[in-house]
Amino acid sequence: MAMGDVARRASVIGTGLIGGSIGLALRARGWHVTGMDADEQVVADALRIGALDAIGIDPESTITFVATPVGAVPDAAATALAATAGVVTDVGGIKASVVEAVDDERFVGGHPMAGSEQLGVSGAHADLFEGAVWVLTPDVNTSPTAYALARSVISELGADALALSPVQHDELVAVVSHVPHLTAAALMRLASGRAAEHGALLRLAAGGFRDMTRVAAGSPAIWPDICAENRDAICSTIDGLIATLGEVRDVVAEGERQRLLDTLTAAQSARLNLPRRVVQPSALVEVRVPVPDRPGVLAEVTTLAGELDVNIADLEIAHSSEGDEGVLLLLVESDRAEAFRTRLIDRGYRPALHPLE
Amino acid sequence: MAMGDVARRASVIGTGLIGGSIGLALRARGWHVTGMDADEQVVADALRIGALDAIGIDPESTITFVATPVGAVPDAAATALAATAGVVTDVGGIKASVVEAVDDERFVGGHPMAGSEQLGVSGAHADLFEGAVWVLTPDVNTSPTAYALARSVISELGADALALSPVQHDELVAVVSHVPHLTAAALMRLASGRAAEHGALLRLAAGGFRDMTRVAAGSPAIWPDICAENRDAICSTIDGLIATLGEVRDVVAEGERQRLLDTLTAAQSARLNLPRRVVQPSALVEVRVPVPDRPGVLAEVTTLAGELDVNIADLEIAHSSEGDEGVLLLLVESDRAEAFRTRLIDRGYRPALHPLE
Repeated sequence: MAMGDVARRASVIGTGLIGGSIGLALRARGWHVTGMDADEQVVADALRIGALDAIGIDPESTITFVATPVGAVPDAAATALAATAGVVTDVGGIKASVVEAVDDERFVGGHPMAGSEQLGVSGAHADLFEGAVWVLTPDVNTSPTAYALARSVISELGADALALSPVQHDELVAVVSHVPHLTAAALMRLASGRAAEHGALLRLAAGGFRDMTRVAAGSPAIWPDICAENRDAICSTIDGLIATLGEVRDVVAEGERQRLLDTLTAAQSARLNLPRRVVQPSALVEVRVPVPDRPGVLAEVTTLAGELDVNIADLEIAHSSEGDEGVLLLLVESDRAEAFRTRLIDRGYRPALHPLE
Repeated sequence: MAMGDVARRASVIGTGLIGGSIGLALRARGWHVTGMDADEQVVADALRIGALDAIGIDPESTITFVATPVGAVPDAAATALAATAGVVTDVGGIKASVVEAVDDERFVGGHPMAGSEQLGVSGAHADLFEGAVWVLTPDVNTSPTAYALARSVISELGADALALSPVQHDELVAVVSHVPHLTAAALMRLASGRAAEHGALLRLAAGGFRDMTRVAAGSPAIWPDICAENRDAICSTIDGLIATLGEVRDVVAEGERQRLLDTLTAAQSARLNLPRRVVQPSALVEVRVPVPDRPGVLAEVTTLAGELDVNIADLEIAHSSEGDEGVLLLLVESDRAEAFRTRLIDRGYRPALHPLE
């Protein structure tokens, strides 16, 4: 189904961060978008920020996006299937239970790997899905036409569509999202428990610990549903992690230096090879810039990049201490890196270039 | 011992990131600093970047900093104790074995919680220790005079001195540093193992997973020594983590929603209350700014902060996808936040303010 053949009209049910961003992205591309939300204030906000043309479900919708909490998806999808003749898709973080509950050839399960449940509609923006992986979970009931249409629309939003079975999706997100989140909470719990004995413990928490526990600062509200609906995959992944930690423990206990080194080297290699967007890793270089503690330094460094049309693909601050100074780590395209470095040196910085591998 | 009474002359053995930064910081404060390193190129670089006045150990040193890899500390400390009549301290990440090996009243074990073993001398800078916690581990053999002098010098470098027993230090860093690092490697290993079955798995890795595994990208070379010298604390902490993960697993398996919520809420609260530097958490506010994908945006936002004299205490990018766009999270002093927000709105951004608690 070519997109030119269909009416560019869509509905969004649930207009928080993801639903609001879908509305903004579609409208930016000339679609007419209507929407609704269980919370009247949320849908009013979505209208105000321009994510919607109007409130409600449009019966002429070519596609309806269900962006409610995952537990509310089946009912909302049924509503959309009854109210329109178009395709219906969702954005829930769990797919097997949703796809099982919504058994209709016009329904395609989906999950954009973008955004964060921590951010409300105020964080919505039209570019949220540019370059994001957007999983679609067609099953045997899904009509090829419906799948092709959903895929075409999400590609129009700039996302990379990735088809997975619902069960496979749930197993994979258990590994890369759910269990890491629970592990962050476990590490934080362990540390705060020990902190009751040693008041100084948390004062020693530096950048690595903060990175590892950052997601634990998010709202816990979504997790009971996720854990209930993805119980088996989460439990078996935790079992796998416990077994892996047990092996690491034994290697440490037995002082097997080479095996420890091999394990950590394999992990390092895997981490360095995580897929990145935008350009290939070989075309990026990391620029490390020590920065003193005063306002404006970050601005100056990044302004220089802007002046030179050096696009910053990623930026991190490696703190020397938690606070306001440290080393700026910028990922930039390698063909512009030398010019950037030279200009930084002219301004009195001491940048160092590091290839990514 | 008041600092005015002593010669402002110091030596540094091991002139990488930490040793080089100590040299820069001392020289910036008027000290005369000499240094040496097992690698001639490293000490030459340290001299070139201004971290040293000269190469060698100065017999007149009031204090000598041993900043070698932890396994080399005892020999280097013995050399310094023989060559000078001053205080000797080290910066190794493990303290019990070091303090036991160097039994001299002029030796004080130390560990600045700053910097990263991933960065070489090119990352050295004079402000590295400003606001950092710097652990000192005096034991019964340590002379009070030596301790007071070491404390006075590190305070002069801007660090917050924190006295711990060597064993207590090692137990605490097992919790906030060593085991988190090994856990990052275990998560990465688990994910890359599963990725062999499901090629798409690592494409789903979004910001949370990347945060949690970032430290696994560091060099593995230092870990066999750390794990050997802190074996007991690391093993018992891994045991604690395994037990905590086992509890979480059981809560998920049994569908105990309220207990899961309680666990995650406690972790959230602990993470939000991690001690921060600079100003009290109550005086900081988080500004969230959705940013489109083009060069210069980050520069513009941070430049505005500089123009308004808004000091950015912390900055992160919450990626919508791994790549180049998302939401800027800036921590700023709350009394300047509204002015900053207004100016951002004037420039067409949609910032939102969030109190830290």
